[in-house]
Amino acid sequence: MTILLYHPMCPHSRFIRLALSEYGIEADLVEEKVQERRPDFLALNPAGATPVLLDEPDIVVSGAGPAAEYLHEVYAASGSVRLMPDNPVERAEVRRLMDWFNTKFFAEVSTWLVHEKITRRFLGPHEGGGGPDMDAVRAARANIRSHLNYIGWLAAKRNWLAGDEMSYADLAAAAHLSCADYLGDVPWAENENAKNWYVRVKSRPSFRGLLGDRVLGMNPAPVYADLDF
Amino acid sequence: MTILLYHPMCPHSRFIRLALSEYGIEADLVEEKVQERRPDFLALNPAGATPVLLDEPDIVVSGAGPAAEYLHEVYAASGSVRLMPDNPVERAEVRRLMDWFNTKFFAEVSTWLVHEKITRRFLGPHEGGGGPDMDAVRAARANIRSHLNYIGWLAAKRNWLAGDEMSYADLAAAAHLSCADYLGDVPWAENENAKNWYVRVKSRPSFRGLLGDRVLGMNPAPVYADLDF
Repeated sequence: MTILLYHPMCPHSRFIRLALSEYGIEADLVEEKVQERRPDFLALNPAGATPVLLDEPDIVVSGAGPAAEYLHEVYAASGSVRLMPDNPVERAEVRRLMDWFNTKFFAEVSTWLVHEKITRRFLGPHEGGGGPDMDAVRAARANIRSHLNYIGWLAAKRNWLAGDEMSYADLAAAAHLSCADYLGDVPWAENENAKNWYVRVKSRPSFRGLLGDRVLGMNPAPVYADLDF
Repeated sequence: MTILLYHPMCPHSRFIRLALSEYGIEADLVEEKVQERRPDFLALNPAGATPVLLDEPDIVVSGAGPAAEYLHEVYAASGSVRLMPDNPVERAEVRRLMDWFNTKFFAEVSTWLVHEKITRRFLGPHEGGGGPDMDAVRAARANIRSHLNYIGWLAAKRNWLAGDEMSYADLAAAAHLSCADYLGDVPWAENENAKNWYVRVKSRPSFRGLLGDRVLGMNPAPVYADLDF
């Protein structure tokens, strides 16, 4: 039994959900409300963040990067899907872009949008809850433009973001963009190449689970689940 | 020829310098002033950050995590030093702790100390230069305590931070701590286990280069290069 402790609007969890689905690994998704800081959860991952992958026997893998590498090392050898290239230099490029989205895009865009627009709705007034700080939202909306242009630039010169084959780089990028897209904060009209690349990722069967996610009391933007937006 | 574009006070660069030295790889260290945003440097790494590893022929590996994985994949197979375990579950633990220090410790501690106390000395008044914002420094000094306790807790139950053998987890942790230590901001007296673990890493020949680093016009704290502090 494989279990993923996740949150529907955590982009790092979404990345690992996509990877699990691409590899065809059946996993139980168990929602973790990280803000509650459950002692049992902190014992699994002292960083207190999703995703955490539980695999048999008694294996705990915390964090998006480590979970992606673990899934590749343990499951890809036995399957036909490969989300990491075999060549160390090509792997370095996939890892650079995984880090770009999981760290840089997260710090500049997705953490602000998700925290301000979603997390704060579920926090009490003494925990930082309340309406979104629109200065933070505006900063994230400004930052996302350069990321979208970078994706468009990569997509114009390569078949997929890191090279000839679809890889973790595409899944990480799409996972983070999908959270911003739920909130209606991706200016798709500004970069046709980025949009066309996203349509290709979003159309994959692995994406269906993400497109069905809903946040309590907050519907997704109209384009969110539309494959022809 | 292997070249590392680095900055003396960049903890991510220090991590890769330690790795190169542990593997016995001769590399030319070339200082990069990232705040100048040289076009040639941005062409190598659009993220605009150190470290960037240049290897023959025409190989560019950007970022601490990708560089560490690349060095392991390309050089460890032919040598006796292994900074990543062979078992995927043990590797996941090394990667979790690498990320802990390269992302979490950096965001909560080292980026603030280095930016406020060092980087801002070399920026003009319109670039955010000036004296340190002591609120940011105090926040970093408060945050470092929980990290030091976590290191002490790990060091008490394991031989090295991630398990029986020294690994990238130890080098990443020591690299980030060494920057805070240069600035005199590690409260060593608070955790004997953490201090004893750091003495072991700091005493390794790979650490000598770091202990010789100096920032223009700013001497290190007295304990910095002292192996018996």
